[in-house]
Amino acid sequence: MAKDKNKKAKAKDDPKGDLKALRKKLSKLRKKLRKAHETVATPSKGPMISPLAPAGGMPDLPTIAGVDFAVAEAGVRYKGRLDVMLARLAPGTQMAGVFTRSATRAAPVLDCEAKIGKPAGGAGAAIIVNSGNANAFTGAGGQAAVESVTAAVSTAVGVPQDRVFSSSTGVIGEPLPYDRITAVLGDMAQRFDGATMPDAARAIMTTDTFPKAATTKIDVDGETITIAGIAKGSGMIAPDMATMLVYIFTDAKIAQVPLQQMLSTLTDETFNAITVDGDTSTSDTLLMAATGQSAAPEITDLSGPTAVAFNAALKEVMLDLSHQVVKDGEGATKFVEVAVTGAADDTDAKKVAMAIANSPLVKTAVAGEDPNWGRVVMAVGKSGAKADRDLLSIRFGDILVAEKGWVSPNYTEDDGATYMKQPELVIGVDMGLGDGAATVWTCDLTHRYIEINADYRS
Amino acid sequence: MAKDKNKKAKAKDDPKGDLKALRKKLSKLRKKLRKAHETVATPSKGPMISPLAPAGGMPDLPTIAGVDFAVAEAGVRYKGRLDVMLARLAPGTQMAGVFTRSATRAAPVLDCEAKIGKPAGGAGAAIIVNSGNANAFTGAGGQAAVESVTAAVSTAVGVPQDRVFSSSTGVIGEPLPYDRITAVLGDMAQRFDGATMPDAARAIMTTDTFPKAATTKIDVDGETITIAGIAKGSGMIAPDMATMLVYIFTDAKIAQVPLQQMLSTLTDETFNAITVDGDTSTSDTLLMAATGQSAAPEITDLSGPTAVAFNAALKEVMLDLSHQVVKDGEGATKFVEVAVTGAADDTDAKKVAMAIANSPLVKTAVAGEDPNWGRVVMAVGKSGAKADRDLLSIRFGDILVAEKGWVSPNYTEDDGATYMKQPELVIGVDMGLGDGAATVWTCDLTHRYIEINADYRS
Repeated sequence: MAKDKNKKAKAKDDPKGDLKALRKKLSKLRKKLRKAHETVATPSKGPMISPLAPAGGMPDLPTIAGVDFAVAEAGVRYKGRLDVMLARLAPGTQMAGVFTRSATRAAPVLDCEAKIGKPAGGAGAAIIVNSGNANAFTGAGGQAAVESVTAAVSTAVGVPQDRVFSSSTGVIGEPLPYDRITAVLGDMAQRFDGATMPDAARAIMTTDTFPKAATTKIDVDGETITIAGIAKGSGMIAPDMATMLVYIFTDAKIAQVPLQQMLSTLTDETFNAITVDGDTSTSDTLLMAATGQSAAPEITDLSGPTAVAFNAALKEVMLDLSHQVVKDGEGATKFVEVAVTGAADDTDAKKVAMAIANSPLVKTAVAGEDPNWGRVVMAVGKSGAKADRDLLSIRFGDILVAEKGWVSPNYTEDDGATYMKQPELVIGVDMGLGDGAATVWTCDLTHRYIEINADYRS
Repeated sequence: MAKDKNKKAKAKDDPKGDLKALRKKLSKLRKKLRKAHETVATPSKGPMISPLAPAGGMPDLPTIAGVDFAVAEAGVRYKGRLDVMLARLAPGTQMAGVFTRSATRAAPVLDCEAKIGKPAGGAGAAIIVNSGNANAFTGAGGQAAVESVTAAVSTAVGVPQDRVFSSSTGVIGEPLPYDRITAVLGDMAQRFDGATMPDAARAIMTTDTFPKAATTKIDVDGETITIAGIAKGSGMIAPDMATMLVYIFTDAKIAQVPLQQMLSTLTDETFNAITVDGDTSTSDTLLMAATGQSAAPEITDLSGPTAVAFNAALKEVMLDLSHQVVKDGEGATKFVEVAVTGAADDTDAKKVAMAIANSPLVKTAVAGEDPNWGRVVMAVGKSGAKADRDLLSIRFGDILVAEKGWVSPNYTEDDGATYMKQPELVIGVDMGLGDGAATVWTCDLTHRYIEINADYRS
């Protein structure tokens, strides 16, 4: 006790000693926290739900004519939770897809790429997804596992094997125990009426803190087209990376070519315009299925009122899902829109926006609610885009922060600091050069990100 | 007390409640720590010295004939510490420089760029550096401040103004109080015998946790050429970014053109091959001064034994300084060499190496001492370089971790985990494609990085 008192007295005289003691305490507490996490946290059942999760939970998801779901607990890696989802798609369903550009793509991605793009003909289709194991960097055995799973789905569901699309997410570098998946398929095929899209959204989660879904509908000539999608990301389970999987379903009657074109183009403005940490998964997959069972007019190309309305509705769903992925970004406490205008062209605008959105210095400033516009200037400068310091202006929301190469005369740090306290922020940059524009979305970089990605296995 | 007991009992039943309480405690403690930091920490006097700092402190630094230093406490921003250094360079000194490629370069950088590259003629030269204010994004006033400072140095030291090179590092977006610098110049010019290169190394620090210096010498025909350099980086003081400043001095007799060529080429293998967080400062500056006072043979081009020996010695000093910058990376606890071989070409090799070195997922894994080779595979895949998963091999030090698209049969997680405990690590990647090779250096991404960059101003 006397010793303690001495220590305290010493700390008062020597603030550095005080710091050292605090740091030691912090380190001890962190260790304790880590240990507690290890005993408690199972993926997706973690104790934390992102503070940015939609307040009302998942939206009410419709039934899409021609789409049936089944889910199962196959125990691929996790025990006692849904980890396989199977979607059965009616004959005539058109499929489109967008995949990771990674040069080390996982086996299921390579398989999907080879199959996508063929017109449906009269056949049905199926999507099979497991969580817990990514079947990535698994050598020749990885492709064999995909073969086994898709063959078994083909038999169980009664669709050609080249119309079975598979995804896997979870641990990488470990062989996929595919027999655990094939073992439950027969049973799943009997239970297509028992599962719903929300079940599917849950089955594909890894360390996501909330399930992600979005839906919308449009009316054309008195008939309805419905679109609904589910997504997972960007949780992580060591030694995995933050894979993003997205499945979108619609009853629209649409040919494969315009479906693929719309999906690819809209991906650039949605899923390719978000970033959590700039890292790219080996397994990112976006699959879309159009069953053609709506009575609305068929879409045969990109023009015409039905195509335009459908494209807008699809964008809405994709934007919603992509924002949910950012809002579940590891450790995220802030949702940040980075809107760049006035760039030399759109490509330059996206370069600048992504440089800001990926900058650890900008992201830590946002985490600290620090209106640190100097770091935005830095990110603009390093982006590689054409820039003129003296034409640049920067806004936080509606607040003009900097213009003409210097801080704006009316800007005060207090205004900036107050703005930064909000959970959703807009960083606006006008380059003052041309018409190029781009908007991207990101989250902040927090202690929790380090906890999730460094502490758990240490 | 009874309440406490109840809480404890509850925590045992409900481990998630326990977590929540721990998290709350952690958050409180962090706040306390932050506050303590604010009252205690002055830049460069911070309580923490990087665990990777050289054990023996700065090396013994030689005197370089033709180079004199003066330092001062000008109070640019910090009180009671050296914040200005002035180097006087003898007539005939050749100057070379490499600068940030940022499109939003600071005023002193633009001024240096305009002046560098001119042959010395008979004139001397001077380098003036202040810490505490970066004079970056300061509009037209920024250039005027550079004019004032360099004019005052020109008068005080007696060298032409176009031979006065200036750098500033510290806060950005605030006007440089240049009168505080010009006020001390007359006095500094009287005290050139009172300061040494270690003083200069200290005067240019911002939040560096240790001063950085390196030196070497070579003998040519019985005569000695000495090289010595100092550097600062990559500490940060809000709202600044991690600026790197490097000043290298030699008594070698060397023409400006080969000096600039050597410096530029070696920068690619040294200072452009390190990364802490992938962010680029608006102020990065590397200046080299060759006084020509050594009696060793003159270097007139890149060939010949003197040029080759000098180039090797210069590389040694630059590599040493650049590694020290990484070792003082914000929050660094591990020094990581990423060595890529077998790429299609050198450009691809550097792309892969930088993708690994900048990946937050790889860097957090290193922080957590997690032998997470899956994240290395991911980084290779996203780099944009040509890659064939099945030809790729990965090593941690001498341990073969993965080969032929899968984990190596002899690799064990235990071996990997043991290796990762070392403070200095080598991640080796062979692409199996060609002769392209590149080596880069980085550090880990820790809680301390977030503390430094997010917590201090929140």
